[in-house]
Amino acid sequence: MRDFSQNHRWLSINTATVRKSHGQDLPLPQILDACARHGIPAVSPWRDQVAAAGLGAISKQVKALGLKLSGYCRGGMFPAMDAAGLQAAFEDNRRAVDEACELGAPCLVLVVGALPGALAGKAAHKDIAHARQQVEDGIGALLEYAKGSGMPLAIEPLHPMYAADRACVNTMEHALDLCDALDPQRTGALGVAVDVYHVWWDPKLQAQIERAGRERLLAFHVCDWLTPTTDLLNDRGMMGDGVIDIPRIRGWVEAHGFAGFSEVEIFSTGHWWKRDHDEVLKTCIERHRSAV
Amino acid sequence: MRDFSQNHRWLSINTATVRKSHGQDLPLPQILDACARHGIPAVSPWRDQVAAAGLGAISKQVKALGLKLSGYCRGGMFPAMDAAGLQAAFEDNRRAVDEACELGAPCLVLVVGALPGALAGKAAHKDIAHARQQVEDGIGALLEYAKGSGMPLAIEPLHPMYAADRACVNTMEHALDLCDALDPQRTGALGVAVDVYHVWWDPKLQAQIERAGRERLLAFHVCDWLTPTTDLLNDRGMMGDGVIDIPRIRGWVEAHGFAGFSEVEIFSTGHWWKRDHDEVLKTCIERHRSAV
Repeated sequence: MRDFSQNHRWLSINTATVRKSHGQDLPLPQILDACARHGIPAVSPWRDQVAAAGLGAISKQVKALGLKLSGYCRGGMFPAMDAAGLQAAFEDNRRAVDEACELGAPCLVLVVGALPGALAGKAAHKDIAHARQQVEDGIGALLEYAKGSGMPLAIEPLHPMYAADRACVNTMEHALDLCDALDPQRTGALGVAVDVYHVWWDPKLQAQIERAGRERLLAFHVCDWLTPTTDLLNDRGMMGDGVIDIPRIRGWVEAHGFAGFSEVEIFSTGHWWKRDHDEVLKTCIERHRSAV
Repeated sequence: MRDFSQNHRWLSINTATVRKSHGQDLPLPQILDACARHGIPAVSPWRDQVAAAGLGAISKQVKALGLKLSGYCRGGMFPAMDAAGLQAAFEDNRRAVDEACELGAPCLVLVVGALPGALAGKAAHKDIAHARQQVEDGIGALLEYAKGSGMPLAIEPLHPMYAADRACVNTMEHALDLCDALDPQRTGALGVAVDVYHVWWDPKLQAQIERAGRERLLAFHVCDWLTPTTDLLNDRGMMGDGVIDIPRIRGWVEAHGFAGFSEVEIFSTGHWWKRDHDEVLKTCIERHRSAV
């Protein structure tokens, strides 16, 4: 297991972590500058932030600053109510693949979607099995396109509390079942993003990480689970402030071949998004060394 | 599958559902009277409510009203920091078994506990595997006592969002693994409580219900998952107001032998606990007929 205590050469910042500073939106160019200033070697930007600043400009800035990417957030949201909706999702995902290529990302992270309309509080139906079939079909179609572009797809199983509205793939086991079905040759074109927040509770986690293996361990995300957690989406904790044994899980992914960046992804309306982003980045660096 | 549309002879009310009326605590004797008044045949009371009113008095009232029980809530909370804590949990669980016997419950529901201290916001450690071992040991010890009393134990897998602080058994598969380990003969002394709120998201749910079978399907709880869900504990929905396909899941448990009550268990600070309890009970009856 790599020693993270001496430096932060394996730290990546998911740009949502400093999406806000003092409660105000922080534009992506400033986030990238701040990461570079702190000697953080890698980032994982979000599509909406890239779109706001312009893909070309961000691509140039990333290269000029010498930043690497640990992933691109995000494709997915495959399920829809009709053929037109499915087609629109497919086209949007192709654009996400193109953007990931332009930015030099090592993978496109997929938050696969769930019951159509549920995110807006009006689920169109209750058939989660049907949504799951649409997800499998959607990934299958996108995979052909992504292979042509050389862009690996990383299915991110989300915590089961998001099964209705954000992602109906909620365990490593399910994500790897999809990998087995769609990429049985383990080509590296399809794998998983392991976010400790989503999977720490799973009694089968270690076994599924082993099952995934090097070809399918495409990303590793960290934050912490707070007790109590006061919001289902935006109350993630800084590493070390919660109950997840992060080093143990990192040990498992590294034992099975993962050697990439450890990406900090924290959504925190009540705490970290209220602080100054430089303070947040300093804390990420410190906790990367002491608690990851 | 049984037809629930014509009456509510298979309805049970978990007494937490009307724990409050107009936002004020409603004592258990009034809850029992109200259920009887509405022709509801069964209830599942909570220990704290029973203790407040007195076990003997509640036992008499239940019998006088001709109410049945669909379960008794709850035993569990096995993990602890030291031998004294484990012993205290064991003794408390024995008392819970005794109370369940006195009340004529068909099973004692187990919410197994998780990281010691986490419920108070101060987890004593992060070793969930250790907590799980303590749970297995605790159920094993209690099972001997419960068998002597003829009281079946129903492990209730809780939603993974409670893995840190309330129950570190979070899937049917894990609960049934414990049943296999502790009661391989399938004697009926150990089984599971299937609460749709906790397990609806699981892609392996149908298969695990089949695996459980009649001997291990000891209780069936219903409510609904709202989108959005605004609180991790106390924002459960009334059946039909959320995204869970409850009839489908009831079909599965009945296909594999469950023929007991359908128990409504709703915690709802923001909505149902603010209403009048008679209105809530009427709604439960209506939705039992139309949405379960």
